[in-house]
Amino acid sequence: MNGPAADGLSERGRRTIPAPTNPMVTPLLTDMYQLTMAYAYWKAGKHLDVAVFDLFHRKTPFGGEFTVFAGLDECIRFVSSFKFQDYHIDYLRSVMPSNAEEEFFECLKKLDCSDVVIHAIPEGSVVFPRVPLMRIEGPLWVAQMLETTFLTLVNYASLVATNAARHRLVSGSSKMLLEFGLRRAQGPDGGISASKYCYLGGFDATSNLEAGRLFNIPVRGTHSHAFVSSYMSLDEIVGRSLVFADKKKVCEDFVGMVQHSLSKLQGIEALRAVFSETNQSELAAFSSYALAFPTEFLALVDTYDVMRSGIPNFCAVAVALHNLGYKPRGIRLDSGDLSYFSIQARKFFCTVENELGVPSFGKMTIIASNDINEDTLDALNKQGHEIDAFGIGTHLVTCYMQPALGCVYKLVEVNSHPRIKISEDVSKVTIPCKKQCYRIYGKEGYALVDLMTGESEAPPKMGERILCRHPFNESKRAYVNPQRVESLYKCYWAGNSGLTQEPLPSLEESRQRCQKQLAAMRPDHMRGLNPTPYKVSVSGKLYDFIHFLWLNEAPVGELL
Amino acid sequence: MNGPAADGLSERGRRTIPAPTNPMVTPLLTDMYQLTMAYAYWKAGKHLDVAVFDLFHRKTPFGGEFTVFAGLDECIRFVSSFKFQDYHIDYLRSVMPSNAEEEFFECLKKLDCSDVVIHAIPEGSVVFPRVPLMRIEGPLWVAQMLETTFLTLVNYASLVATNAARHRLVSGSSKMLLEFGLRRAQGPDGGISASKYCYLGGFDATSNLEAGRLFNIPVRGTHSHAFVSSYMSLDEIVGRSLVFADKKKVCEDFVGMVQHSLSKLQGIEALRAVFSETNQSELAAFSSYALAFPTEFLALVDTYDVMRSGIPNFCAVAVALHNLGYKPRGIRLDSGDLSYFSIQARKFFCTVENELGVPSFGKMTIIASNDINEDTLDALNKQGHEIDAFGIGTHLVTCYMQPALGCVYKLVEVNSHPRIKISEDVSKVTIPCKKQCYRIYGKEGYALVDLMTGESEAPPKMGERILCRHPFNESKRAYVNPQRVESLYKCYWAGNSGLTQEPLPSLEESRQRCQKQLAAMRPDHMRGLNPTPYKVSVSGKLYDFIHFLWLNEAPVGELL
Repeated sequence: MNGPAADGLSERGRRTIPAPTNPMVTPLLTDMYQLTMAYAYWKAGKHLDVAVFDLFHRKTPFGGEFTVFAGLDECIRFVSSFKFQDYHIDYLRSVMPSNAEEEFFECLKKLDCSDVVIHAIPEGSVVFPRVPLMRIEGPLWVAQMLETTFLTLVNYASLVATNAARHRLVSGSSKMLLEFGLRRAQGPDGGISASKYCYLGGFDATSNLEAGRLFNIPVRGTHSHAFVSSYMSLDEIVGRSLVFADKKKVCEDFVGMVQHSLSKLQGIEALRAVFSETNQSELAAFSSYALAFPTEFLALVDTYDVMRSGIPNFCAVAVALHNLGYKPRGIRLDSGDLSYFSIQARKFFCTVENELGVPSFGKMTIIASNDINEDTLDALNKQGHEIDAFGIGTHLVTCYMQPALGCVYKLVEVNSHPRIKISEDVSKVTIPCKKQCYRIYGKEGYALVDLMTGESEAPPKMGERILCRHPFNESKRAYVNPQRVESLYKCYWAGNSGLTQEPLPSLEESRQRCQKQLAAMRPDHMRGLNPTPYKVSVSGKLYDFIHFLWLNEAPVGELL
Repeated sequence: MNGPAADGLSERGRRTIPAPTNPMVTPLLTDMYQLTMAYAYWKAGKHLDVAVFDLFHRKTPFGGEFTVFAGLDECIRFVSSFKFQDYHIDYLRSVMPSNAEEEFFECLKKLDCSDVVIHAIPEGSVVFPRVPLMRIEGPLWVAQMLETTFLTLVNYASLVATNAARHRLVSGSSKMLLEFGLRRAQGPDGGISASKYCYLGGFDATSNLEAGRLFNIPVRGTHSHAFVSSYMSLDEIVGRSLVFADKKKVCEDFVGMVQHSLSKLQGIEALRAVFSETNQSELAAFSSYALAFPTEFLALVDTYDVMRSGIPNFCAVAVALHNLGYKPRGIRLDSGDLSYFSIQARKFFCTVENELGVPSFGKMTIIASNDINEDTLDALNKQGHEIDAFGIGTHLVTCYMQPALGCVYKLVEVNSHPRIKISEDVSKVTIPCKKQCYRIYGKEGYALVDLMTGESEAPPKMGERILCRHPFNESKRAYVNPQRVESLYKCYWAGNSGLTQEPLPSLEESRQRCQKQLAAMRPDHMRGLNPTPYKVSVSGKLYDFIHFLWLNEAPVGELL
């Protein structure tokens, strides 16, 4: 199931939709109540009522004013493969009351999503609260049954993609961002999803090999502290010969060459205040690593002492590699004051470049990776640093700042009757009706407002002034003169409806969409501190209808 | 792969160990650097060095002083099935430098864990910082390669099991705790792992059907707000007949009987101040649900208005069911002031019991479920409430208070040479050597201290006074007189070593171990506010050795 065929890619135009990446995503990966409701609908003869559900979120995460929508691809894979297996049915029979009718289970066995139609905003889009990310139409029981699985697939995906995008915004586009979170992720699939959606949100690579294989994401990794401390001395290294980069000669004693380089470094006046003797276990580990990876030598330099041991040892090996025609990559810092050490390391590299005449030695890559989050990135930017790439784990993948997104799935219409969910908390009142959604752009090319209308209303037109209203706050309304109108929905699952089904974009395409949309947003919506809320509105007609329905359904209170 | 055979249970004495629950758990679910290190070890001829790694955590989560260890079962399943597939190797070849030697990949293909030995503290145990939860011995390259996957399987499992245990401690043993987190979990497997380990940590049931099926956890669920709002009026209900509980008679118009019950409730003087007309969509939904589930009628009562509509409608249906000989279950509250509404609902039920003479109607189950966490539970206890069961989702499964646990995997010995990882941060210095771990109990029967010794030291004995030292703080030491000594490790993976391999306990057994251990801890270690830290120590001999090694390895600073 999870073998070579599950490549995680969906090429544009491919006719068959692959199965969900995680084979555990089946119709049984849902809440029990979806099945008890299905039974009750079926018993009442209501299961084929035509329902419309909206999937949306009420609040952007991390105190920001935008969300990156992700997880759609997996939802459509799920829908496409939706089928109860016999062992699912057997299990359901065992947990439903013993008087549940057998005919129900027979109907379940035959159920698929061919009568379902799904419209959605494309994956990787920048989205805002209340605008439905997905609109699901279909027979009440099956449309209802999709709820939990869709939420599971969208909530974390969108949360972590947004988190990645925020890290990208803070770090700037010139830095390399590496996702290193697998070991701290919430379960194996938390790790795999994190790698996928961090890449979508703007990261460059992952340490997670399985994610690399499944989604064709670049992978990165060198060695750990354990590698360094597993060596005790240079005597341990058995194979000491290394071929030159041009393959024309062989250096018979690379380790000797490293020792020679180290003594040359020790002879540099300017470095005498920095180090004298270095840790020999570390030197052995670095030499050994270089012998294995002469073309991509990158070393973790903080196992013993960054400036007194790690950097000089790295430079000794790197200079030796350089002598053989190789271009060493750089270092990783995993503790301490990253700003300070990166600046000191850069100075050290430049000194080596100047003193020993090693060209571009000063431009060595410096990777930093120790409990990095948005705040650290911001602080490093303010302090100044010489870091080229960040390896980010725990805070990124577990979304430490806010580990859950609250997307919900609400019924908005049954058999063409609009439905509303009332709540004492206004933010929880749902916007009824099957809707269309638009993004309206202004003169400067920036998005101005998202607009929801009833399905049958005429779409807003370029140059035609239109009233946009806050869905619940009477006084908040504005006329907008659209310079461009973008219809947000595409049909990603047409079932048997005869509608044209949009092919699923590849991860790479969704990633590009995300980067393009982030870059096109007005900067004040995207800034870290006190961002301006982006406006989400309804048409005048939809506004009136919401409030008519609300008054109709809400009980009149009595103050006692 | 993920079908009927993957039952998640491992019965005592079963000879074969099942595959990991999630088929995505393969040797490729790891960080890239594990493979680059493997290659470097192999190149250096060091890959068969005998290594010992410790898996441990440095800090208990959630501001508490204990952790519940979980995830071991999945680690052993992983080890047991550890094998690179051809498509893994093909992928690895594509990401390793082109000059990597083919022979390495051939060796990888043949690799398994038969030369590995794993000792561990049993799953479900209460554990403390620095004491290794698992001790992994084996050829350096394979023992190293297990790191990321083990951490992924243990970190979240232990975190969420601890979170569940904390919720159980606050709620008390008499309340029913239901895990409702799937839709907010970090990915599908975040959801499935959460259900598994919340059950281990003391929850009673889950809403997650797939977890129920895989691990034999009781499942619970009724209906959502959408179910209620999908109904418009009583006219919609087509099949209105319901057989009596004793199956001897049939009530031809159950809906009429519900309406009759409602008018009887409306006639009760004491309830007049509470409600008059109720929402008819809701009454239709409840009636319909009761027709489908007469034996286990439980209704969500807050779609429109709890006291003015939900409770009276529920009671109308419940009284009608009672007339047919059924025993309705109760209600779920999902918003508002849970303390207030549960008390008001209980009063309403008692009034119905007294006024209409419905026996035990007052004892109806009240379930509450709205963003509940440890603090809410604590506050509800202080305010007073009438809730019998809690449905807990987001905060529980995403471990909102602290979404990551920081277990690490450190090399402590190579070819019988102890290894230490130095750090400027003392809490990050590792405790070297292959070790034995004990829990020492005092006179009152409570655990007093955990003690680590060198592997070859004699174990502490009952009644023999022993010096226990803090591993890094010279001044912290105490004599202990053990009344009972528990050796913490069992061998869960013997490989080809000839050691006796402990069978994996079932989830139920680990759950019972957890409950038993939590109950046996001294209460001041377990309390929410300012818990007393539990003591973790090393023997005098190990202490001396740590500090000898530390001085040996750490560079001597120079103040400039």
